[in-house]
Amino acid sequence: MSLPKEVHWGIMATGGIAQTFTKDLLVDPSTRNVTDVRHIVTAVASSSSLSSAEKFISNIISASQSAKCTPYGSYEELVKDPAVDIIYIGSPHSHHYQNAMLCLSHNKSVLCEKSLTVNAAQAKILYKTAKEKNLFFMEAVWTRYFPLSQTIRKHITDNDIGEVIRVLSDLSIGVAPEKEFDPGHRMVNLDLAGGALLDLGIYSLTWVFQSMYHTLPPHLREQSRPKVVGAAMTPEPRTGADESTLILLEFPKSTPTGKTRAHAVATTAMRVSDDPGRRHAGKGDVETPAVRIEGETGEIQVYGPIYRPTRYRLIPKDPAAEILDRKFEFEGGCHGMMYEADAAARCLLAGKLESETMSWAESTLIMEVMDEARKQCGLVYPDAVESTDYPLKLTSKA
Amino acid sequence: MSLPKEVHWGIMATGGIAQTFTKDLLVDPSTRNVTDVRHIVTAVASSSSLSSAEKFISNIISASQSAKCTPYGSYEELVKDPAVDIIYIGSPHSHHYQNAMLCLSHNKSVLCEKSLTVNAAQAKILYKTAKEKNLFFMEAVWTRYFPLSQTIRKHITDNDIGEVIRVLSDLSIGVAPEKEFDPGHRMVNLDLAGGALLDLGIYSLTWVFQSMYHTLPPHLREQSRPKVVGAAMTPEPRTGADESTLILLEFPKSTPTGKTRAHAVATTAMRVSDDPGRRHAGKGDVETPAVRIEGETGEIQVYGPIYRPTRYRLIPKDPAAEILDRKFEFEGGCHGMMYEADAAARCLLAGKLESETMSWAESTLIMEVMDEARKQCGLVYPDAVESTDYPLKLTSKA
Repeated sequence: MSLPKEVHWGIMATGGIAQTFTKDLLVDPSTRNVTDVRHIVTAVASSSSLSSAEKFISNIISASQSAKCTPYGSYEELVKDPAVDIIYIGSPHSHHYQNAMLCLSHNKSVLCEKSLTVNAAQAKILYKTAKEKNLFFMEAVWTRYFPLSQTIRKHITDNDIGEVIRVLSDLSIGVAPEKEFDPGHRMVNLDLAGGALLDLGIYSLTWVFQSMYHTLPPHLREQSRPKVVGAAMTPEPRTGADESTLILLEFPKSTPTGKTRAHAVATTAMRVSDDPGRRHAGKGDVETPAVRIEGETGEIQVYGPIYRPTRYRLIPKDPAAEILDRKFEFEGGCHGMMYEADAAARCLLAGKLESETMSWAESTLIMEVMDEARKQCGLVYPDAVESTDYPLKLTSKA
Repeated sequence: MSLPKEVHWGIMATGGIAQTFTKDLLVDPSTRNVTDVRHIVTAVASSSSLSSAEKFISNIISASQSAKCTPYGSYEELVKDPAVDIIYIGSPHSHHYQNAMLCLSHNKSVLCEKSLTVNAAQAKILYKTAKEKNLFFMEAVWTRYFPLSQTIRKHITDNDIGEVIRVLSDLSIGVAPEKEFDPGHRMVNLDLAGGALLDLGIYSLTWVFQSMYHTLPPHLREQSRPKVVGAAMTPEPRTGADESTLILLEFPKSTPTGKTRAHAVATTAMRVSDDPGRRHAGKGDVETPAVRIEGETGEIQVYGPIYRPTRYRLIPKDPAAEILDRKFEFEGGCHGMMYEADAAARCLLAGKLESETMSWAESTLIMEVMDEARKQCGLVYPDAVESTDYPLKLTSKA
């Protein structure tokens, strides 16, 4: 057996999501039966202070590993570190374009949190730049890399539920924004491209796309780009960010048979919940599926929250057939971000520029759908946040 | 105790729905604790043959009642019968406008099956005519009159789930139309205004409207007319009728507080099912709610089929609060159409022209929403079916 190949990571941003990602990254991959890659965190950068990076390292990275890990008080220093192979970007999505361009311009490969950017124009420039520079680049849609997601996609491509006709997909968190978030919070602050769509709705769209589009043979995907038939938003009363977004999509064909048009409804909301029964765990089976992938011969129901689902049901139309009810655990006690990290590392080591599971084309298409939904509802972010100029100093603290 | 007052019904059409309605009508109202009204079926008309009417009477109406019941081989004869107080119209909705105008022009009150008409223009003329002639007229949306519906509307007006923010409502029957229906079948035949929208989608919209609009104080309803943000349809491959329709609606305000915009998604489809688990009864709790009425402090989930639901759950957001899980039975062994019949009889006896539970204004508004959905998707029925001319001979056999 050959030794695992090492990938040296730089972590850009030190907030909650970067911490969760880094913890997962540093769990021994053999606990999930991964023996071909090994992740090393070589450097961590905070945009605000060296001490934040130092604190991150001392808190998150074990002593034996931290000796090898350099803290930086600016992203500019991180991208110049020759010991870094790939940079994980964990800043708010308002800042992804500037941060990712900084990485690419210093010839660093990138794994960038979702939503990749604020609009499709930014995404296109990032992917174009990565291609020109021959660098690996991936949008960190962790959910797609879960064994649960892979299993569900296989059910669809194996025709276990027949032609997919309709998908209903929801991520709604059930909190009153005015009670839960200060107006400056990234969830509602337009300067950080806050709101439901980019933060939560990306997952609703992820489930739509991974079950209706990604499951098509690649040569059929181009003719299967969906149309946004309608979109609606509710503005958050204080900031005008979207506290709720509903998108109705039409796909020209769902599977290679293309017998019928297929539709999807992707929804997200703050004020209501995708599954109010989840809070009542232990009071009987009161769960409500948050994603319904409805095929001609059966339906797959995914229980939320859909960014990190652990259970699905496959209910065949035939009442004599068996209902499949599967629960998944995250291996090695991880949170779930290690699967995307493994995939990114493998692509990087194989010299690939993109991951098939979250291709540049599909990532761009999803950004285009979000652009169109915002356009139909009149939601724009501040000029600097929407800009494709680089470099551009964003005023908001991320 | 005063004796029940008698209402004398004429039955127009002899198909399945007229049979179900008449059976319910003739069950002794005291079995459902109704003692103020009594239903008498005085006449039955078939548009095609006297023998159909005779057969209907002998099959559906008990011997003691049939002695008083006159069969007719044409609708024209029925509307001239002076013994008839009110006529129940059970023909396909393509024919409702002509049939109802025939009744009104002979000064008969009407209970007309849903969808009331094919378009709002026809509905408006019917209601205008009924008003001018001082006749009672009601769209037979039976579901609204169920104790279950009344209970759910009371939960909403009692603020048991807080402000209603979003409603998802589906009626989908899970059959392949090309296997289940001949091209001439009313479910897919455009000459009969066939398709999912008018036949099934009316129920999805009923649940949206009775939970987001009807629950408003009447003086707030006018400013709360929803906008069709987007609509999508799948044409049935052979006939072009809609085999699936999705409508995204935005309501300016959902409750008197009007804190936030509210949204609804009303869907209907033939090829997929609103609840595939229903066929697996007895294999554990695999039911999926077909209607979700999502409020700020809780959610009401209605289990389908939503035209005749028998169970709902109220799931409070507060995990310490009790989940309500209620099942309903139809009293007296009826199918469920007797509640609307009782309501119609009471209105008629009280000299009312319309029923508050299904007002002319709301009925017209729902027709307008269906018009708009069809317009956005380019679905039109044949000229004669869409026409407001009266009298007009429709060529299709109903």
